Amino acid sequence: MSKVKTGIVMMNLGGPATLDEVEPFLLQLFADREIIQLPFQKWLGPFIARRRTPRVRGLYANIGGGSPILAHTRAQGRGMVERLDRLSPETAPHQFYVAFRYAKPKSDEALRAMHADGVERAVAFTQYPQFSCSTTGSSLNELWRAAGRTGLRDAFRWSIIDRWPVHPGFVEAMADTAREGLKEFDPEERDRAVLLFSAHSLPLDVIDRGDAYPQEVGATVQRVVERLGVVNPYVLAYQSDVGPVRWLGPSTEQVIRRLGARGEKRVLVVPIAFTSDHIETLSELDREYGEVAHTVGITQYKRAPALNDRPLFLDALADIAREHLASGEVFSTQYPMRCAGCTNAQCRNVLNPAARASRRARGERIKSATG
Amino acid sequence: MSKVKTGIVMMNLGGPATLDEVEPFLLQLFADREIIQLPFQKWLGPFIARRRTPRVRGLYANIGGGSPILAHTRAQGRGMVERLDRLSPETAPHQFYVAFRYAKPKSDEALRAMHADGVERAVAFTQYPQFSCSTTGSSLNELWRAAGRTGLRDAFRWSIIDRWPVHPGFVEAMADTAREGLKEFDPEERDRAVLLFSAHSLPLDVIDRGDAYPQEVGATVQRVVERLGVVNPYVLAYQSDVGPVRWLGPSTEQVIRRLGARGEKRVLVVPIAFTSDHIETLSELDREYGEVAHTVGITQYKRAPALNDRPLFLDALADIAREHLASGEVFSTQYPMRCAGCTNAQCRNVLNPAARASRRARGERIKSATG
Repeated sequence: MSKVKTGIVMMNLGGPATLDEVEPFLLQLFADREIIQLPFQKWLGPFIARRRTPRVRGLYANIGGGSPILAHTRAQGRGMVERLDRLSPETAPHQFYVAFRYAKPKSDEALRAMHADGVERAVAFTQYPQFSCSTTGSSLNELWRAAGRTGLRDAFRWSIIDRWPVHPGFVEAMADTAREGLKEFDPEERDRAVLLFSAHSLPLDVIDRGDAYPQEVGATVQRVVERLGVVNPYVLAYQSDVGPVRWLGPSTEQVIRRLGARGEKRVLVVPIAFTSDHIETLSELDREYGEVAHTVGITQYKRAPALNDRPLFLDALADIAREHLASGEVFSTQYPMRCAGCTNAQCRNVLNPAARASRRARGERIKSATG
Repeated sequence: MSKVKTGIVMMNLGGPATLDEVEPFLLQLFADREIIQLPFQKWLGPFIARRRTPRVRGLYANIGGGSPILAHTRAQGRGMVERLDRLSPETAPHQFYVAFRYAKPKSDEALRAMHADGVERAVAFTQYPQFSCSTTGSSLNELWRAAGRTGLRDAFRWSIIDRWPVHPGFVEAMADTAREGLKEFDPEERDRAVLLFSAHSLPLDVIDRGDAYPQEVGATVQRVVERLGVVNPYVLAYQSDVGPVRWLGPSTEQVIRRLGARGEKRVLVVPIAFTSDHIETLSELDREYGEVAHTVGITQYKRAPALNDRPLFLDALADIAREHLASGEVFSTQYPMRCAGCTNAQCRNVLNPAARASRRARGERIKSATG
């Protein structure tokens, strides 16, 4: 294999590949103060993680014994790289590297593999379409920490793709999943199905700090609805809230209950902030909320397929990367904009070769944004 | 004057034209359960309204002795109608009628004037770009009630413009206000100003019922930023929360405080959900938050001008109305979609000639949505 010129790091949450990886996955998730802030986190985090393990193991057992997210991410990476080699010969050969936040393979492994492959140019490409400090932010901070840990801080020339909420290819791929979902309804009833766009929720404390996520999710929904061009009514809701704090609503589960209670019979759920099937689609949306829907009298409850390895989405990923490589951009103008209420001194400010390169160019801005 | 063929009802909140109208304005606002839900509202509403009157009178005294919203709305109406007569001769002559929710002129007056002018076709045109049950929803419900009260229930052939969050003309007009605001900064520092988009907040209980507002505001911000094409960092925040319940954040005031605390020196506030200057721009954004900004060390705090009678916005209003008239649409496909958690039996279901006409056409859909 020829030396890799451009390495693309696909960053995502990850999931336990086997049942035995459920506990370590939860331990890492509940240890990350960039996603969850608990009092006495060093003690309370492991306590909660261990207490939840049996139930979560059961959920993974029900969806085939593990998360399919690694298989999907690899299929996405292969499809993207094949396309990029054709679309952008000047940056070829390309290779993808998976960096999950709470499951293998992690950032350290990705960086070592890139070094072994002789990568020159590295792109940190978030697989979360909409930016949140708790997802993309945490993954990027961890990537820079891993660069420090592995001694590879200066090994690559970095740039960042930190968000793509309204990229036309992504919007088209997402609209196509909704189209496919709508086909599941009888043609004469199809127009009456409620489109229920569902995104992962966030605690309101994160929202109140100024996280960009709800604004960008709202923008994605608008664009997908426009692209779809259907007459179905739609609503955006947020799923997967846990614990005692208040989360951003409306809650997907509550919306399903209430739509049923008022007599709606047809609901199509469209996961709007995930790119792969995982526990939140296969277990929560399909099984858990599917049962809720049945209970409240929604006779036709369907879920649009996840993007997974759908060719339109592979096209989109390749196009996002190609545009980025061609632009010469180090990071988006929005990346240095920390949340107004940021409480994380590391945020957008850790061992980041991209930021160091651009700090020289941008001077005061970075200083004032991180000071 | 020739008989009016098309009457366009411009619906908005309204504001007290004189200081003596402050108390009645607040009394009506705090009596409307579609915007504020209080325990023992018949007693507590007037109590709160009367207690707030002296302070609010003082605020209006400081901005010239009353709200300018009626003057702006009339200028907008005149500009829109002039353009429409040219753009849409087949529906001419057009006339505009102002229907404020809590100040004169109200819906009853608008309907009587339309009847006197011999209006045939009537368009209920919300002046809130993004839909919320507490604004456009409440105004529409009140309009239909007024039609009943005045005996003019069947006097006109109605249609509705209930939202226009990403209409290209509106987006362009809004981007133009931001451009003008940016010109207030020194050219060499302009790119570093933080764009702080500010929309009126809503109580989280409204959000949790499934109100469309935050999704649509997020979509507007995305489109305006794209249209602007500048490198400035941006953030969306929500202003004007009052009382003990929790409101949608982040709070505009908090964001200003925190941006100042971390050393930002330049902020441009862009009102993203208002179309006219009124107390929330002239008093809250300019004076109150201006003082906050000064206190926390933001040396250049500017506010983008409101749309008011800017020609680009008059063009947008006319274009929105022209498109609507040409489409033959009675209401948007989203209008019958009540919030999943709707607690208002009147909502989208009152004496509404448009709904009655279309109920025949749409049959079961309306039944199931309102049943």
